[in-house]
Amino acid sequence: MRQITLISTGGTIEKTYDEHAGTLSNRSSIVQEMLRLLRLEDTNINTLQLMQKDSLELTDADRARIVGAVRLLTGAEEEPTDCGGIVILHGTDTLCQTGEYLVGEIADPKIPIILTGAMRPFEMKRSDALQNLNEAIFATGILEPGVWVVAHGRALKFPGPIKDRQRGTFVSAT
Amino acid sequence: MRQITLISTGGTIEKTYDEHAGTLSNRSSIVQEMLRLLRLEDTNINTLQLMQKDSLELTDADRARIVGAVRLLTGAEEEPTDCGGIVILHGTDTLCQTGEYLVGEIADPKIPIILTGAMRPFEMKRSDALQNLNEAIFATGILEPGVWVVAHGRALKFPGPIKDRQRGTFVSAT
Amino acid sequence: MRQITLISTGGTIEKTYDEHAGTLSNRSSIVQEMLRLLRLEDTNINTLQLMQKDSLELTDADRARIVGAVRLLTGAEEEPTDCGGIVILHGTDTLCQTGEYLVGEIADPKIPIILTGAMRPFEMKRSDALQNLNEAIFATGILEPGVWVVAHGRALKFPGPIKDRQRGTFVSAT
Amino acid sequence: MRQITLISTGGTIEKTYDEHAGTLSNRSSIVQEMLRLLRLEDTNINTLQLMQKDSLELTDADRARIVGAVRLLTGAEEEPTDCGGIVILHGTDTLCQTGEYLVGEIADPKIPIILTGAMRPFEMKRSDALQNLNEAIFATGILEPGVWVVAHGRALKFPGPIKDRQRGTFVSAT
Repeated sequence: MRQITLISTGGTIEKTYDEHAGTLSNRSSIVQEMLRLLRLEDTNINTLQLMQKDSLELTDADRARIVGAVRLLTGAEEEPTDCGGIVILHGTDTLCQTGEYLVGEIADPKIPIILTGAMRPFEMKRSDALQNLNEAIFATGILEPGVWVVAHGRALKFPGPIKDRQRGTFVSAT
Repeated sequence: MRQITLISTGGTIEKTYDEHAGTLSNRSSIVQEMLRLLRLEDTNINTLQLMQKDSLELTDADRARIVGAVRLLTGAEEEPTDCGGIVILHGTDTLCQTGEYLVGEIADPKIPIILTGAMRPFEMKRSDALQNLNEAIFATGILEPGVWVVAHGRALKFPGPIKDRQRGTFVSAT
Repeated sequence: MRQITLISTGGTIEKTYDEHAGTLSNRSSIVQEMLRLLRLEDTNINTLQLMQKDSLELTDADRARIVGAVRLLTGAEEEPTDCGGIVILHGTDTLCQTGEYLVGEIADPKIPIILTGAMRPFEMKRSDALQNLNEAIFATGILEPGVWVVAHGRALKFPGPIKDRQRGTFVSAT
Repeated sequence: MRQITLISTGGTIEKTYDEHAGTLSNRSSIVQEMLRLLRLEDTNINTLQLMQKDSLELTDADRARIVGAVRLLTGAEEEPTDCGGIVILHGTDTLCQTGEYLVGEIADPKIPIILTGAMRPFEMKRSDALQNLNEAIFATGILEPGVWVVAHGRALKFPGPIKDRQRGTFVSAT
């Protein structure tokens, strides 16, 4: 049985609609609702709801908390945990900034650490949220250790990837 | 073959998501997309995309245009058209204001004139948009002539109905 | 608060998929699952799961049970119940046979008794199941007393309606 | 731009509902409809609709045609094509038989050849079809060359995997 941990930080992927205000925002994690729609065999998923923010509002302290959580989950070199992979739900606007920060802070990760997000909230029809979450969870069983962004059918390794705002996806910087 | 006309004015029901801006707003009518999901027999639906506004932004001139469109579609008393019913998609916040205005301006309607809207945009999962549109179209074949609001399983006749903001639906004023 | 009763007898609308057998059949009622997708105000729905059969397999005894349930729910003339309308989920193949039978057995119904079903099971995408259920429930608040079939945007009163197998809907016999 | 080819052979994943017959069966490929629901960047997918059969009805000749198609797409050792991966939609009942056959016939594949299918038809709600197709397409960019089955969050390499009929998934034979 594979053990993975899903860290939720917010972002468009988890924005929900408030009928009274008529607006979309990050209120509480909907990651359990998403996971119910996937059929995953031999996979045990722990979920850690770390924060619930639009990624444009993430502070340095928030990013430090993300790194702290990843460190805690992976354990020390001499004392690794049984966590086989980490998926981080994150707003796409500053996802790559967090990816670069993780690469800088965690020198030699022993497991795949995968960032993902969505261009349309999960709560909307035709959202890319469930697809990207599915790809990220699947990828934890296959990708080599390192920090990655997974979305829209592809995996890109940090350092390097950037968001292409025109196309609404992540691309390799060249 | 029943002839009905669907007038689109905007409102939450037709709000769509802009992936670049990350916001919901009224851009263009999605009424055709909604209609494709209904199976309607012996019903011919004309669609008139009159405006595309949040109902809080509707002006007196906008409401006059709605009345004008309804008059055009129903025809004069001596020269009725073949239109058997009118459905008006409208934001819920000022829907009842438009309903009262229609009652005041069109003294003795010969067909049902049905206002409807939604608390969640059609583009969201678990939206009440398609349900309310379905009920409104179905109601054109059954309700007696007059001005109505149809939503959430009920039909309420104007004058009278108001929006209950707490419950997120329309109720009879008492 | 409107009181209506939903009698479930099976039919295509409630067929579910068995992953081991790879077939669709009537196993248990899914009417609660359907009702969760509708937003109904001031409506209290009792559900009565009477049988779960393909309507081609309904016997005379089954139809007698349906009539018995309708009689029970409507009460006697001197002692009417608080039931304001009845919706019967039924396979489309023999729905009209049951409709004619109800008209023959219940001479002067005081409330609308509405039969409905679907051409595609609720469990399939693009099913007409939820639309027809929605229309039938909505219709209980509007239709005059009598026995009706409601589906695909229309209400047809018994005696008379037949299934048009080519078009996959109900039509008035002429 | 990654080039992959999707070979459609039928199976539960592509079964569609016939409203007149009231049954599910393999009629024509719905792979284009499935692909429209995925957002795939830098991926060009050719689709080859080879046959449309329940996998219990596949003959030796059918399996030989599948091998022939894979050979054609991968090219000879000296003349490889630009195809970077192959996904084969296949009924789950004999998927592993075809996987073993491919391993036996294609000694040293240069690209990942990935079989997938579904326990519930794509046309049904809560189907695993789109998830498995998504995982298989994603996996073409990451898995090492070889013959694989990908489904339910996992990739298993042939020879070896078998269908676990009780659990409704694929497992490693041990």
